[in-house]
Amino acid sequence: MYIIIMAGGSGTRFWPASREQKPKQFLNIIGSRSLIEQTFLRVSPLTEEKNIFLVINHIHRTLTEQLFAERRVTILSEPRGRNTAPCIGLAAVHLRRHAGDIPMIVLPADHFIADEDAFRQTLRAAATVAETGAIVTIGITPTRPETGYGYILKGAQQSTLSEHPVFLVEKFVEKPDLPTATEYVASGRYLWNSGIFAFTPNTILEEIAAHLPDVYRGLRQLEEHISANTYQAMLDDVYARFPSISIDYGVMEKTTRPVYVLPGTFGWSDVGSWQALYELRRDERDERENLTDGRTLLIDTRRSFIYAPSGRLVAAVGLDHLLVVDTPDALLVADLRRSQDVRRVTEELKRKEWKQFL
Amino acid sequence: MYIIIMAGGSGTRFWPASREQKPKQFLNIIGSRSLIEQTFLRVSPLTEEKNIFLVINHIHRTLTEQLFAERRVTILSEPRGRNTAPCIGLAAVHLRRHAGDIPMIVLPADHFIADEDAFRQTLRAAATVAETGAIVTIGITPTRPETGYGYILKGAQQSTLSEHPVFLVEKFVEKPDLPTATEYVASGRYLWNSGIFAFTPNTILEEIAAHLPDVYRGLRQLEEHISANTYQAMLDDVYARFPSISIDYGVMEKTTRPVYVLPGTFGWSDVGSWQALYELRRDERDERENLTDGRTLLIDTRRSFIYAPSGRLVAAVGLDHLLVVDTPDALLVADLRRSQDVRRVTEELKRKEWKQFL
Repeated sequence: MYIIIMAGGSGTRFWPASREQKPKQFLNIIGSRSLIEQTFLRVSPLTEEKNIFLVINHIHRTLTEQLFAERRVTILSEPRGRNTAPCIGLAAVHLRRHAGDIPMIVLPADHFIADEDAFRQTLRAAATVAETGAIVTIGITPTRPETGYGYILKGAQQSTLSEHPVFLVEKFVEKPDLPTATEYVASGRYLWNSGIFAFTPNTILEEIAAHLPDVYRGLRQLEEHISANTYQAMLDDVYARFPSISIDYGVMEKTTRPVYVLPGTFGWSDVGSWQALYELRRDERDERENLTDGRTLLIDTRRSFIYAPSGRLVAAVGLDHLLVVDTPDALLVADLRRSQDVRRVTEELKRKEWKQFL
Repeated sequence: MYIIIMAGGSGTRFWPASREQKPKQFLNIIGSRSLIEQTFLRVSPLTEEKNIFLVINHIHRTLTEQLFAERRVTILSEPRGRNTAPCIGLAAVHLRRHAGDIPMIVLPADHFIADEDAFRQTLRAAATVAETGAIVTIGITPTRPETGYGYILKGAQQSTLSEHPVFLVEKFVEKPDLPTATEYVASGRYLWNSGIFAFTPNTILEEIAAHLPDVYRGLRQLEEHISANTYQAMLDDVYARFPSISIDYGVMEKTTRPVYVLPGTFGWSDVGSWQALYELRRDERDERENLTDGRTLLIDTRRSFIYAPSGRLVAAVGLDHLLVVDTPDALLVADLRRSQDVRRVTEELKRKEWKQFL
């Protein structure tokens, strides 16, 4: 099988640690390796290194090549971020050209997985289902009424594959409000949309052709120029015209083809905010529930997260659920419970054109 | 008259802006000049520059000489801080040697005064009373039940001098709790102890002889070596033996001589904490009551004080009454209402021997 690691995200909710030049997936925010390296290492037992594709923004080419200098991974650059549909399409045309109609698993570079063995078993099962020409997704069994995720309503069970039940997807639903999320979780019929999919290149390209014809046209042009010295110019050209659209919205919510979902119970998080990271790293907290990276001095402080890898001393007095993120040129101090709003800082920086801080 | 500006404080409640090498009185925390310069400029209309003494810690000699390079001020160094009694005694022996028994006004280098004309008028009146051989202090008419200040209980009015009523001091009292402070203010009989005194050198040295005989003995030895090349060695020697003791505790609370107090109504603060500074600079706050120095970006933030003169960007999300102090090597994030507890940080730094941050 082929594995496509999508690493084009901008990670604005992890500002100021995450910057345009080095976004979230390149940061060591959990453990001693970056998320993209951890994702690579997690899937590498599934296939040969060269069958793992990293799809990145071209501005991270050098950084990626440095991180993977010892690996025979395949790197595909996008000239600009256009969300997941163009990214997956790009990988699909390369893969089809490269190897034929082999199952491909696409997954984000910046997620956290607790049980890696269980994760790989689920991906293996998904690839097996995808081999039949089906669209397959991994749905996460929800553990709380999370409003930050999309949900998948599962339908009838179709089969069982290596102990994995396979369900039909009834529908994909957008991020719910809290009462709706609570109902979803109580019903037992909903799963979190993990953004992890399996299909063959032909399957997904047919779907893109059906629902995103403009994207498909660009991908076909590109496919003709792969290995030609006109490829880069064509890539720039088609990406300039691509809409920014997700595979969920552009294909999954519209397809008439059956979509299957495999429930995953391997401990998953999209690490979507500083608060999510604080929750994930629960075991590293002190007895007052503080999580600290760096040199800190805490007085009467609890439930706070201080991320200060640059080595400056951070002293805290009388804080409760505070977030402090210290970087050499910019500092964030926020209510930890409002870490979703950190993206408002980057929006404001864009508006002010304070580009050096983006 | 002579004016003694006491600039030996360590300013630990203003950490991390205030450091051992450059404490509070050398910082531009209000306006564009340091507090010590502002204090000098405030009193300089009262006398010749050479009659203004700066008593500093020897480690700030170079810094002080740079700040006052254009001024003919007299600088006296203390080998170590021993609180106000030795500091005032040192100035008194120099002054007696230098000029005779002329009234001296002693005042801290790091206070804020709103009405400088009224302040100078009060000091002139105090010097006139001191000329008679009396001990005189300035008491501030309290505007709130402040628990961070000592109080003075005033007795009978003795006279009126240039429109300034002069009262006998009944007693000096230590910092009260809130109910006591509230009673004090309601009674109309208490004033805040400003730490500003006037007396002649002979008067205060007689009092030191009576109540702090060990200090007096050291001062007399020192006086004999003034202008001799043995002075510095003797200074080091006597300061090594001096106790650390305030003039209030060592003399004022014990003297049997009448002490007079002149009420001051010139708008005074000892600028004792980040919160006090935030209150003082009320006019500079934005419509959400935020006070900022430096480059900041505030989202849903109110009643907060961000001091970031080093030029780094500080972004805030969802804060209320937060204090952020950013310096090149250390950062403080605190509940602004707990800024008295900032000194606990420096205590902890001493305990840990993290000397580079002190």
